[in-house]
Amino acid sequence: LLTCVANPVMMKTGNFPSDVVEHAKLILAHCGGGNCGAYSQSVGVEIIRKHVAEFIKRDGFPCDYENVTLSGGASESIRNVLKLFIRHDKEKKPGVMVPIPQYPLYSASIEEFGLGQVGYFLEEETNWSLAEEELERSYQNSLKEFDTKVLVVINPGNPTGQVLSRDNIETIIKFAHKHHLFLMADEVYQDNVYAPGSKFYSFKKVINEMGAPYNQMELASFHSVSKGFMGECGLRGGYVELFNIDPEVFVLFKKMISAKLCSTILGQVIMDALVNPPKPGEPSYDQWIKERTAVLQSLKERATLVKEAYGSIEGISCNEVQGAMYAFPQIKLPQRAIDKARSINQEPDFFYAMQLLEATGVCVVPGSGFGQKKGTYHFRTTILPQTEMMKDMLTRFKDFHAKFMKEYS
Amino acid sequence: LLTCVANPVMMKTGNFPSDVVEHAKLILAHCGGGNCGAYSQSVGVEIIRKHVAEFIKRDGFPCDYENVTLSGGASESIRNVLKLFIRHDKEKKPGVMVPIPQYPLYSASIEEFGLGQVGYFLEEETNWSLAEEELERSYQNSLKEFDTKVLVVINPGNPTGQVLSRDNIETIIKFAHKHHLFLMADEVYQDNVYAPGSKFYSFKKVINEMGAPYNQMELASFHSVSKGFMGECGLRGGYVELFNIDPEVFVLFKKMISAKLCSTILGQVIMDALVNPPKPGEPSYDQWIKERTAVLQSLKERATLVKEAYGSIEGISCNEVQGAMYAFPQIKLPQRAIDKARSINQEPDFFYAMQLLEATGVCVVPGSGFGQKKGTYHFRTTILPQTEMMKDMLTRFKDFHAKFMKEYS
Repeated sequence: LLTCVANPVMMKTGNFPSDVVEHAKLILAHCGGGNCGAYSQSVGVEIIRKHVAEFIKRDGFPCDYENVTLSGGASESIRNVLKLFIRHDKEKKPGVMVPIPQYPLYSASIEEFGLGQVGYFLEEETNWSLAEEELERSYQNSLKEFDTKVLVVINPGNPTGQVLSRDNIETIIKFAHKHHLFLMADEVYQDNVYAPGSKFYSFKKVINEMGAPYNQMELASFHSVSKGFMGECGLRGGYVELFNIDPEVFVLFKKMISAKLCSTILGQVIMDALVNPPKPGEPSYDQWIKERTAVLQSLKERATLVKEAYGSIEGISCNEVQGAMYAFPQIKLPQRAIDKARSINQEPDFFYAMQLLEATGVCVVPGSGFGQKKGTYHFRTTILPQTEMMKDMLTRFKDFHAKFMKEYS
Repeated sequence: LLTCVANPVMMKTGNFPSDVVEHAKLILAHCGGGNCGAYSQSVGVEIIRKHVAEFIKRDGFPCDYENVTLSGGASESIRNVLKLFIRHDKEKKPGVMVPIPQYPLYSASIEEFGLGQVGYFLEEETNWSLAEEELERSYQNSLKEFDTKVLVVINPGNPTGQVLSRDNIETIIKFAHKHHLFLMADEVYQDNVYAPGSKFYSFKKVINEMGAPYNQMELASFHSVSKGFMGECGLRGGYVELFNIDPEVFVLFKKMISAKLCSTILGQVIMDALVNPPKPGEPSYDQWIKERTAVLQSLKERATLVKEAYGSIEGISCNEVQGAMYAFPQIKLPQRAIDKARSINQEPDFFYAMQLLEATGVCVVPGSGFGQKKGTYHFRTTILPQTEMMKDMLTRFKDFHAKFMKEYS
């Protein structure tokens, strides 16, 4: 699809499946000048936004394409929505509740925009679920310093790999409603759900199923081509659906993003490929379903492999990787290793990760980069390497870990 | 090149010139996983940054590729550089000097980032040149309200179409040096120079030729694939070179942009096509030089056509379109037209543009959107329509204008 849109001459001469050619022609007919080289509207090409809206209707509820904005990856949309809460005229900074651990986009953007980061801890003991008491504690505690306005939920979780249950999502929605919090649902890993019994529920769906007054809450939902079975992160495609947003605010939102002109047309096209894939009976359907299934099945196997491998190592515990692309195992570091790290002014998990890297070439990210409960130590690792490489890596990891524990015990 | 990078299978089977295939292979060898689907470094793909640095050396001075950052169009880089000046801890806002008229990216971003817009007027009488006295007046006047730190120059000009002379650039550099201003040189129209006697000089080149102390000034230079002979604005490719920037500030700059991950790889690839085109003797050179020459020649003809056409209409004056893609003619509106506009709460040039649109279907942008001296009225028009369409448009325009003047005189 990308090739056909980028190169209409080749679309005619190349041997592309007819449904792909038709799809490309439809998109090009809605691009300025009939090609991908012109600016689109700042919110994105209209036909692509309509296809996104059709995709979102899988939730069983209406979706107006006017509420859909395309962007260069979901991260651009996330940053655009966070910007809506910038205020410099109040004594207290607007507070944004984010999970701990969380990936650095939120902490970096919150800091950049002069907002206040309000961390709530995920419960490692219950596979990184969200406990209402912890949300309440975090919120109440934040009010001393911040005017807390936003609740960010990442589902499936990055770096923690959990998939929220429907019950858990209801609890979160009720909590947000009680405190008039704007909900940001980061759902970029929605296609990456592996664990038996786990299922992805969008916040939009649950809010609507709960009925009034919850279905009148303001909600921003994000999705991306960078994850899932595509993983086309270098092409920069993403969207946000703004649901129940105040019309006056929405006008300002659109005005604000117009200063950036538009997101890349080819990134928008890849988003169309994600939300509007080949249908059964179409020439390219078989290949699509085959590739999609193979990628997701392989990720599922690796999710199991990672959990089992880390779980079998003494001194390491690892939750089930229910979804997303990561594991966030906990390391029980010996006191001598902690002391050694502190003596050279390093976080203990950073020290561990650097030793691992130097001894084995295996690179993991220290948990301190994502946040963790005090006195606990973690690292983030990914399930993305191919199975054979992963097995080799795990062997090297086990050897290193045994030696490390022996040295510092 | 884009097709080959986006679709390596097609690169092998398609009938592409060998130099294009080699170029694509070189880029892919420097992309993560050997394809365009992975993130690059936040600053951009290294080999592309090296090609940009080679391109910049046309100025006759060194360029370190480490100083080059790729972005989604030049506008993203312009916004990133402006962000460096955000401060909320001082009583006075940091001031940014921008030309009046100027296109809305600057005014919108300055407002969004809580900076202060300091307008300096371009001299319409001397073909939109920059007068030192006006820069000085604007700067001194701004200090009451702002802590003015930055001078933006757009050369060739948008919407005014002027190309600064080398002398004029020297004057501007001396002025910026005197007041310790950070220079932002928006040079995205550098390939669009049409007028006999006009030539593009980059600020980087002039600063270096002037020698010490000017060659130690901090300077940000911007370029884009959206203009020139390519006009591939929908693909989002741009760069900034940060010259003489404080190393500590540069570290923070790179940290800040890393929250956005990276700009689209395919936009970066198009930038490579711009800065690293086919060389004489290579298979695709002839086609490239032919297309490039034809586009630029045609734009040059239309630049002349527009100036002559508007200049021949009574009540309209139009400067020479020395460069860029726009004309910004002045309309001498009759007092009755001005009164009529005010009576319905419209800017007079907005009223004129709306009347024109409704009567003829011709769309121009009112000058009030770009800023203009009080009591003068302009509109921005572009030289982009094909010659035949332009001639038809000019006929309709003349008819309308004559009727309008008659009605309101």
